[in-house]
Amino acid sequence: MRDQILVANAGSSSLKFHVYDVFDNDQLCFAYGGQISGIGDRLPHFRVRDAQGQDLLNQDLAPDQALNLHSAQHLVADWLIAHLPKPPIAVGHRIVHGGTQYSASVAITPDVIEYLDGLSPLAPLHQRNNLAPVKVIMDRWPDIYQVACFDTAFHQGHDPVVSHFAIPKAYYERGVRRYGFHGLSYQYISQQLHAEWPDIYAGRVLVAHLGSGASACSLKAGRSVDTSMGFTALDGVPMGTRPGKLDAGVLLWMMEQGMTHDQIQSLLYTESGLKGLSGISADMRVLCDSDETQAQLAVDHFCFRVAETLAGLCVSLGGVDALVFTAGIGEHSPFVRAAIADRLAWLGVHIDPAKNESSREGLISTADSAVKVLVLPTNEELVIAQESLRLIRAEAGINI
Amino acid sequence: MRDQILVANAGSSSLKFHVYDVFDNDQLCFAYGGQISGIGDRLPHFRVRDAQGQDLLNQDLAPDQALNLHSAQHLVADWLIAHLPKPPIAVGHRIVHGGTQYSASVAITPDVIEYLDGLSPLAPLHQRNNLAPVKVIMDRWPDIYQVACFDTAFHQGHDPVVSHFAIPKAYYERGVRRYGFHGLSYQYISQQLHAEWPDIYAGRVLVAHLGSGASACSLKAGRSVDTSMGFTALDGVPMGTRPGKLDAGVLLWMMEQGMTHDQIQSLLYTESGLKGLSGISADMRVLCDSDETQAQLAVDHFCFRVAETLAGLCVSLGGVDALVFTAGIGEHSPFVRAAIADRLAWLGVHIDPAKNESSREGLISTADSAVKVLVLPTNEELVIAQESLRLIRAEAGINI
Repeated sequence: MRDQILVANAGSSSLKFHVYDVFDNDQLCFAYGGQISGIGDRLPHFRVRDAQGQDLLNQDLAPDQALNLHSAQHLVADWLIAHLPKPPIAVGHRIVHGGTQYSASVAITPDVIEYLDGLSPLAPLHQRNNLAPVKVIMDRWPDIYQVACFDTAFHQGHDPVVSHFAIPKAYYERGVRRYGFHGLSYQYISQQLHAEWPDIYAGRVLVAHLGSGASACSLKAGRSVDTSMGFTALDGVPMGTRPGKLDAGVLLWMMEQGMTHDQIQSLLYTESGLKGLSGISADMRVLCDSDETQAQLAVDHFCFRVAETLAGLCVSLGGVDALVFTAGIGEHSPFVRAAIADRLAWLGVHIDPAKNESSREGLISTADSAVKVLVLPTNEELVIAQESLRLIRAEAGINI
Repeated sequence: MRDQILVANAGSSSLKFHVYDVFDNDQLCFAYGGQISGIGDRLPHFRVRDAQGQDLLNQDLAPDQALNLHSAQHLVADWLIAHLPKPPIAVGHRIVHGGTQYSASVAITPDVIEYLDGLSPLAPLHQRNNLAPVKVIMDRWPDIYQVACFDTAFHQGHDPVVSHFAIPKAYYERGVRRYGFHGLSYQYISQQLHAEWPDIYAGRVLVAHLGSGASACSLKAGRSVDTSMGFTALDGVPMGTRPGKLDAGVLLWMMEQGMTHDQIQSLLYTESGLKGLSGISADMRVLCDSDETQAQLAVDHFCFRVAETLAGLCVSLGGVDALVFTAGIGEHSPFVRAAIADRLAWLGVHIDPAKNESSREGLISTADSAVKVLVLPTNEELVIAQESLRLIRAEAGINI
């Protein structure tokens, strides 16, 4: 009976899990994964698929079965307990915020939970949800080894020039810093470059993580030196429902118009970005297929701002040798990749149209492009599983 | 007795005026100018100097003589009426906001005032102050020709991709757009390039207007195509007391901490930027001379963000042929210019150290720099005087 690692990723309206088998030499292999989506909606859904994409479960839930994250968690826990031959050797959690204390993953203890809970005001929509499964699992499997993996950790160690806002330094001390997010994705990309593209890994690399959340990161010799997201997941490039960079004066104006904190927060987290600008959809596929002027504006705006952000990030690298596209849009939209590359042609970014259309992975730039362009599928869950295994082996005195 | 043009520039704590003589062929020549500074402070001061820099007036005021802009205006009006041999043929005003209606300067009528007054919520700290002298002058010289010159006008006509934020389009219709500011300065630089550097004018030019307010603008064939300031004068690069770009989540966090609109506004307009980050001074000269770590951090952060912003603006131009430094810091700080150029060396920006140290105006790049670098002193008041003269001549049927 193989050891297994469980990965948990709890958001505000979905709960995802992934199970990995631990093979010889601690190789990890994805076994199956699932999610409950639409938590709190009228049509929650529970689906689990194996490594071949076959459904192990695919069913609508009654609204009261997944009223909130709490009830959804117990459904998942029940399903897992019925299906796992034995408890996993470790559970890794995606936690949005590691604050200033954690520059790497960490084994979860009551002290760790207390610290992470205290960071909730820095990520009001994510941190408590991320931590909730930790407590459920402690109840169900009191002795299990749990690991917190942070979206911020990979960006720790940025130069102070990068991590500060130009506001009074007292706010920095209170935690108002440019943390950066999507670090698990960037860590995966960095590992992949190290393993498969060592020449590129050694150089100056821009990574565009373009999904429903989106950001960009500059990597020098595999390490993050700057990133577009700042204090929260609102900043940087436009996203499905978030605006990316926004004049602070817009928020002051909204306050003057009588909007409350919660109204502004809701507008900026759930009604802005591609959805707000197009008035049509948060889904890039829908917008790219639309003939509506506003849909085209939203797509153009997205590509323009991503290009501008990537150009700006070159300052942190002193130039650029390679550009990596990843995450949903980055992996699956040749149109968006081409539009961004086109706006960066002056930097020496040239995509081969045929490779761009046909590639799901690998080099898509022309032979004479000064900047190499790659598509690399990301895998944040695998990083969490690897980190969890690394920590439990270290705990047992075994370095892997 | 020569005709004269008066230029007025009223801010929250200072009131400035400039008087120009109109020579043959409508050449404008600066005669004298002055300001009341420290309005509302304990030590207001009134100083007027002529074109040779000689004082015509230099005196401290009692606090109750310049309690507010209203009393300061009457002091200036009294002084001017005593000194002007006849009323000026036109008065030009610097008005921060022309909204969506004005893409050029305009003769002031009651309808114009009403429209501009209605824009006050878009520039709460500036617009009403800017308009105040219009009304005082109407009372003093009822028949005088007055002209409004806008900081936004030069940026009108930006591509929609540039002028939108990624928020619901209803906000754009309500005026929440990226207007851009410092347009009178950029217009002056564009004119100077056209007159003195026609090859550079014809190309792709970045202008860094770095003063106590600071922004950057991209010029294609002399026209603005993008700029770093957005909806308000808070956005873009760090300034003396303003932060430049700031994660919207920071404002949400401040609201959660119980800060009011006025507290946040005051913090961001008057306590942030170089002053906030250094904790020492808003004055770049003081910070460059300081050995304090925080002073150096503030200077480095400023240069880093300006370089990042300039690199990002290259996307709107499809590359860059020249970079112009202007305004207080841009004209007078070789150290800052060198630090910014150093961070843009990968773009082909190379400054000649000797020229950079000694030049107050002209080319400072090396012979083999791919990007030409210039220092050009700006002159927003002259643009206002020129625009005022142009409009009054057009009114009389004379095109100049």
